[in-house]
Amino acid sequence: MQLWSKSRLGVGPVIEHGFYYDLDVRDKDGNVVRLTPNHLPKIEKRMRELISRKEPFRREEMPIDAAIEFFTARGQTFKAELLAALRKHGTTAVRPEESQDVSGEGSGVRGQVSNVSLYYTGEKFVDLCRGPHVGSTADLGAFALTKIAGAYWRGKEENPQLQRVYGLAFATQEELDAHLKMLAEAEKRDHRKLGEELDLFVLSPLVGPGLPLFTPRGTLIREELERFVWELEQPHGYQRVRIPHITKKDLYETSGHWEKFADELFRITTREGHELAVKPMNCPHHTQIYGHRKRSYRELPIRYKEVTAVYRDEQTGELGGLSRVRMITQDDAHVFCRMGHIEAECLKIWEIVDRFYKTFKMPLRVRFSRHDPAKMEKYLGTPEIWKRAEEQLRQVIRKRGVEDVIDGLGEAAMYGPKIDFIARDAIGRDWQLATIQLDFNLPERFNLTCTSEEGKDERIVMVHRAILGSLERFMAVLIEHYAGAFPTWLAPVQVALVPVGEKHVAACEALREELAAAGIRVELAGSDETVGKRIRTYEKLKVPYVLVIGDKEVDSPTLAVRVRGQEELLTIGRSQFLARLEKEIRERKSF
Amino acid sequence: MQLWSKSRLGVGPVIEHGFYYDLDVRDKDGNVVRLTPNHLPKIEKRMRELISRKEPFRREEMPIDAAIEFFTARGQTFKAELLAALRKHGTTAVRPEESQDVSGEGSGVRGQVSNVSLYYTGEKFVDLCRGPHVGSTADLGAFALTKIAGAYWRGKEENPQLQRVYGLAFATQEELDAHLKMLAEAEKRDHRKLGEELDLFVLSPLVGPGLPLFTPRGTLIREELERFVWELEQPHGYQRVRIPHITKKDLYETSGHWEKFADELFRITTREGHELAVKPMNCPHHTQIYGHRKRSYRELPIRYKEVTAVYRDEQTGELGGLSRVRMITQDDAHVFCRMGHIEAECLKIWEIVDRFYKTFKMPLRVRFSRHDPAKMEKYLGTPEIWKRAEEQLRQVIRKRGVEDVIDGLGEAAMYGPKIDFIARDAIGRDWQLATIQLDFNLPERFNLTCTSEEGKDERIVMVHRAILGSLERFMAVLIEHYAGAFPTWLAPVQVALVPVGEKHVAACEALREELAAAGIRVELAGSDETVGKRIRTYEKLKVPYVLVIGDKEVDSPTLAVRVRGQEELLTIGRSQFLARLEKEIRERKSF
Repeated sequence: MQLWSKSRLGVGPVIEHGFYYDLDVRDKDGNVVRLTPNHLPKIEKRMRELISRKEPFRREEMPIDAAIEFFTARGQTFKAELLAALRKHGTTAVRPEESQDVSGEGSGVRGQVSNVSLYYTGEKFVDLCRGPHVGSTADLGAFALTKIAGAYWRGKEENPQLQRVYGLAFATQEELDAHLKMLAEAEKRDHRKLGEELDLFVLSPLVGPGLPLFTPRGTLIREELERFVWELEQPHGYQRVRIPHITKKDLYETSGHWEKFADELFRITTREGHELAVKPMNCPHHTQIYGHRKRSYRELPIRYKEVTAVYRDEQTGELGGLSRVRMITQDDAHVFCRMGHIEAECLKIWEIVDRFYKTFKMPLRVRFSRHDPAKMEKYLGTPEIWKRAEEQLRQVIRKRGVEDVIDGLGEAAMYGPKIDFIARDAIGRDWQLATIQLDFNLPERFNLTCTSEEGKDERIVMVHRAILGSLERFMAVLIEHYAGAFPTWLAPVQVALVPVGEKHVAACEALREELAAAGIRVELAGSDETVGKRIRTYEKLKVPYVLVIGDKEVDSPTLAVRVRGQEELLTIGRSQFLARLEKEIRERKSF
Repeated sequence: MQLWSKSRLGVGPVIEHGFYYDLDVRDKDGNVVRLTPNHLPKIEKRMRELISRKEPFRREEMPIDAAIEFFTARGQTFKAELLAALRKHGTTAVRPEESQDVSGEGSGVRGQVSNVSLYYTGEKFVDLCRGPHVGSTADLGAFALTKIAGAYWRGKEENPQLQRVYGLAFATQEELDAHLKMLAEAEKRDHRKLGEELDLFVLSPLVGPGLPLFTPRGTLIREELERFVWELEQPHGYQRVRIPHITKKDLYETSGHWEKFADELFRITTREGHELAVKPMNCPHHTQIYGHRKRSYRELPIRYKEVTAVYRDEQTGELGGLSRVRMITQDDAHVFCRMGHIEAECLKIWEIVDRFYKTFKMPLRVRFSRHDPAKMEKYLGTPEIWKRAEEQLRQVIRKRGVEDVIDGLGEAAMYGPKIDFIARDAIGRDWQLATIQLDFNLPERFNLTCTSEEGKDERIVMVHRAILGSLERFMAVLIEHYAGAFPTWLAPVQVALVPVGEKHVAACEALREELAAAGIRVELAGSDETVGKRIRTYEKLKVPYVLVIGDKEVDSPTLAVRVRGQEELLTIGRSQFLARLEKEIRERKSF
């Protein structure tokens, strides 16, 4: 405002990584100023000056109508618009991340907003904010403005385009520096870039955004992941099922998803006029398999597993690479069990989660989202059911010996408590991937029971769980975690053979067959480019082992192996090499 | 008309198995007569009398307007309605099977109908028909009326409901009898009935018709089938890929499917107003993976395989069990190759088809659908391309040593010739399942090329192929082929263990573990029902091997095995039994 005084402020929320502010930047004559990255140091400099002045933040409350007048008078028409929306709908949120931006008292409850809060700082600056704020600018630590992007006001294309300035803030400069270093590393590892270089997936303009197509190489990785999870699940009694991807509206009306996913649902009207949806969730279908006949308590727990897709009508602007897609493949499973089974079932699931993430060397943290006993009206089921269920989950956490649990008091869903697992990747980023969620709601809605020992109908419990969450998102995480250098068991090509000349092709072919017969994914390079160029091709593809076969190698009893990431050649006997590969793959070793 | 003289005739087409006539049956006073199966012998009797009179059929042509007046005057308003539709649209067809029912000269070409043909027989009977007819009723062989059903006029719910009388006709009584016997057998094997009894799939009213859900047992069978096909495909260089199920309209506009599947397409409009479709075909997607980068001739053939679903907006009335569904899982593959590769690629595919169907003991016949050189305007591509492609297919047929080929001159698709395989099931029914289709069209539309030896862009050819076609339909065929008694490798439960009493459970448990460790699907029955009842349960589930374990069996070194379909118990040593099972499964033996 000091640099370009006729600017109008949009929204400025905290986001997952940092913050942004949407601005209509205008100079004192009202001319639009087009920000470029070169402007950022200038803005940062002024911010530092303001911080050094130790300006206090002062809160003021004001009736909503007065606030609208106040901001209109100051030319801050976007703020006035937000307040008008708040008065009308009880919320200013267009998207979830905005909901923490501005709201008044009684926020979240529609139509109950009376007063809103403003914060003053410095000579003239005032902004609308729920707060709280730090005491003064002196309390601010280290910050950086990181980039500029265009953004439509309130995310709608028909609205004016604003300029979005992104930034980061930390308590100390050290933390900020570490984070900036991590960001630079993350950019190098960007799965969209690596996905293209490693030929893992394709985005086609004809198919559309958020709808990646997986090449043979990418598919191999997905299949290895699916196979691994299934290997861990099978001993625990999981059974696979298959459900259709389109379904009558009726199923989702019964489950409640028709209403809950109103915006994100892909709807279809058949030529006969029936209403269908492309499925946003799999659980309602699994209830139909469970519920199609009477179940005895003796059959329980029943565990249905399926790797299948759910579909969400995400907005185009929010789609990107594999991280946010419109068709999300889930490694979904539902356990249908009695109250008394919860602890044992959750321990089984935890065991799978634990073994899975250990394999990737991704440490896990645990969040326990439980109900708030003071607000029972928010939840489904009696206080006794919640107490009993959460006691079992607490017991599970205790048995797993986890002490550093993130406590989510009051963060349980309406339908039950849950345990989330947060995995940390190689460059220190946290990803919430695996989850265990109890559900008292769907068994009610679909009237799911088992016949008890006394011959009575007993209401059952459902457990929703995911090990790797979304296959697409997990692949994105994994590509960046490994920077594309997958361990041998996941590498689409595990061994590449490079014949020096035409006369070495036969020897390569023999070796190829030997390795392929042992189930190794091996590729033989054509011999029409220079050896150096072919080696570089495979290095770029991050193939774990590259073998160059020339005169010397043909006659030698040992192999000379280029191991990915190692300077020195590995000299090793054929059978030892094969044994090493087989062990590495079987044990899913890190490279 | 003689029995109920005020009846009105709807349509009476030939269908895949027999014929039907839709009738508004009314007596001489105009009262509706509700037909029951008891009426059928009465109608058949009158039909036989008419046949014995050897009444000639006489054809007459009439301008369409005159015909409308003619039928209106006789109270046959449905016929008049058909003719009005014919005059307006050039066809009377609402559904494909009707198209062979009534049409005038120039049929199939819109708006060119001038004259229509009528057939007279007996004293007063006259009907609208394209013909030809046999000379007289004396030429009719054996017939039977088989059932009655309700049917809306022209298949539309808002129209009056008519009564549909189904019938069969053969040249001789022997053929008719054989067919009726087959039908009785088919009814016993009905996959809908067996699917329920064997707990293979579920139809849920909330999910909707044509959208089956596969239980764990049904899923096991699907997975075995998929695994088998993949085992046959893999040695031939197939690679798996994965594509999204929803896609921008643009892809199908380019491929031509947007127009071609106009009626059957499930359309979606996103909240941003973009038009998507739920995929009706997989080939357009596979072209996007092939085409996302330059391909050298050295990389070809490229073979993409995927078991994935396509979706068709079939009308509710046509859906049934697994035979006709709205989400069709295909074992789809596309080979991208040069003209010169066609023969070798088709031989590879044929090899897979042959080994696959031999395993099920389903004999194959072959139909070769080729172009009509006299009508080159119907086809895409030059006569040279067609000649060369068909010469290769002919060579393939010759190399496979097949002599009894059904010749489909002029039956090729616009985009290329094809070879279809017709499999015969255990009760003599024919099913068209596997197919190999050449395609010159999509490579044009998507501009698919490879760089030739001369460094030029060379147009490639696509080969579409399916081995088992639709997974759902194939499962329906297989359930009926085996009457639910699957060979061991396909049986969801391969061995059932029945402990006589509580004290034999431990011995069963030990045996269960031993078999399960060898990968056998084994189930242990609870011990709370009588032995007889538990044995009957497994017999009803058609489990191949049932072992009852009591005092005698616990102590015996041999097992007493109830083999499905055998009266006598099989006495066999443990290790021999396991070896037998393993061999049976590994070799995918018929039971």
